[in-house]
Amino acid sequence: MSSNSALNIIKIGGNVIDSENDLNAFLEKFAALPGKKILVHGGGKIASRMAADLGLEVKMVEGRRITDKAMLRIATMVYAGLTNKSIVAQLQKLSCDAIGLSGADGNTIKSMKRPIKDIDYGYVGDIMHDSVNTGSIKKFLEAGFTPVFSAITHNGKGQLLNTNADTIAAALAVGLSDLYETSLVYCFEKNGVLRDVTDENSVISQIALSEFEPLKDQGVIADGMIPKMQNAFEAIGKGVKKVYIGNANNLHLFQQGQFGTCMILK
Amino acid sequence: MSSNSALNIIKIGGNVIDSENDLNAFLEKFAALPGKKILVHGGGKIASRMAADLGLEVKMVEGRRITDKAMLRIATMVYAGLTNKSIVAQLQKLSCDAIGLSGADGNTIKSMKRPIKDIDYGYVGDIMHDSVNTGSIKKFLEAGFTPVFSAITHNGKGQLLNTNADTIAAALAVGLSDLYETSLVYCFEKNGVLRDVTDENSVISQIALSEFEPLKDQGVIADGMIPKMQNAFEAIGKGVKKVYIGNANNLHLFQQGQFGTCMILK
Repeated sequence: MSSNSALNIIKIGGNVIDSENDLNAFLEKFAALPGKKILVHGGGKIASRMAADLGLEVKMVEGRRITDKAMLRIATMVYAGLTNKSIVAQLQKLSCDAIGLSGADGNTIKSMKRPIKDIDYGYVGDIMHDSVNTGSIKKFLEAGFTPVFSAITHNGKGQLLNTNADTIAAALAVGLSDLYETSLVYCFEKNGVLRDVTDENSVISQIALSEFEPLKDQGVIADGMIPKMQNAFEAIGKGVKKVYIGNANNLHLFQQGQFGTCMILK
Repeated sequence: MSSNSALNIIKIGGNVIDSENDLNAFLEKFAALPGKKILVHGGGKIASRMAADLGLEVKMVEGRRITDKAMLRIATMVYAGLTNKSIVAQLQKLSCDAIGLSGADGNTIKSMKRPIKDIDYGYVGDIMHDSVNTGSIKKFLEAGFTPVFSAITHNGKGQLLNTNADTIAAALAVGLSDLYETSLVYCFEKNGVLRDVTDENSVISQIALSEFEPLKDQGVIADGMIPKMQNAFEAIGKGVKKVYIGNANNLHLFQQGQFGTCMILK
């Protein structure tokens, strides 16, 4: 669909959000990106600190965090309230016409409360194949707004749900690839996929799907990078043009095609 | 401007928000209102409770609450986060395509930090004559969305500010009266302006500006109703077609013209 206009969907994680300086530096680079774009932000540590300050116990089952009713309230307050609105106000200052959204706003992202199997994760929303309301999001984009998504969605029946921000970003990129030539950009703390994990300058600039298995066999792609890249190639298989992974501090290099590692189909 | 389409701007206060049952009953009535509409919601007691739970002292100077940095964070979390998104999720359930907004979102409402004279109110934003970005709000309305405003605005320089919800509702009604035939509806705990304050059935159905002073002289309009009605007539003087004041529980009667007291120019 090369006749469609380009859309960049950029996800930042908690480590950037937790530092006001890092966040503001990142937002300047984000605001400067030309063309249509969407920001998706994760949570950061504010919600956990808030929970601790309120004397709430963070519930874990088999090493995984459980979102009970009290935790959902805090996630909604912090992610969709404090963090989202602070980012939007900052972007407006930078002349980027941002609007902050949860999945409930404009019914943009509907999710399904995770079914209880061995573990009851509580108020966690899983993305479905039809979660993304492309018509609604298109209205915002075509009106010139830059949507800023927090990791809160809804089930369409009045229930807000906590949803993984990486998954939201991927679902947006896949869903909107029918309407736009979408690129998905994951910002994290490393410069990209490194050929030598001890050398931040050894970034592999491009990885095609056919190179993924050999790089895994060589041990270049290991540990936490494996699921990240599997998700990336899955998104590409579903219509996303390119998936990038790189350092939030380097987003200004994105336009020059010098940002992190780019994953492509072939 | 009778050729313009109608727009109802409805404000609900904290007493409705503090009761989940009352709020849901109100939202059903709001969702059922046909045509273009905007909801503005106040704060309620959740923010004060949250502040108390976090051990924060509510700062008062000469009986007036001060919004320091910690209180602004809480107001942003609760008003623009928890309350706003809960309302939006509920409206979506009722097939009302709501989007929750702070004044920063889409740069819809810009305010000015209140100047320090005798008292430093802290992070409180005052509305200016050009606060309302009608072009931005029009985009949402024309796209079929129902904006839901929390009482958080921004100064355009990256600072969020706490702003009175009544004032926001009036500013929206005045600003948007250039584009729409706006009515402003204040929901509160009484059935309207009462001829006999002890009789909820003695609602005065209509008050023209010329009747305001005589009703004050007669003592029918007294105490807290005086500034409310002054603000109402000020809005009418600036282009708002009608201002209503009545009970949130009676909003279903609005379409039949049987809601509370209606203030008109003449």
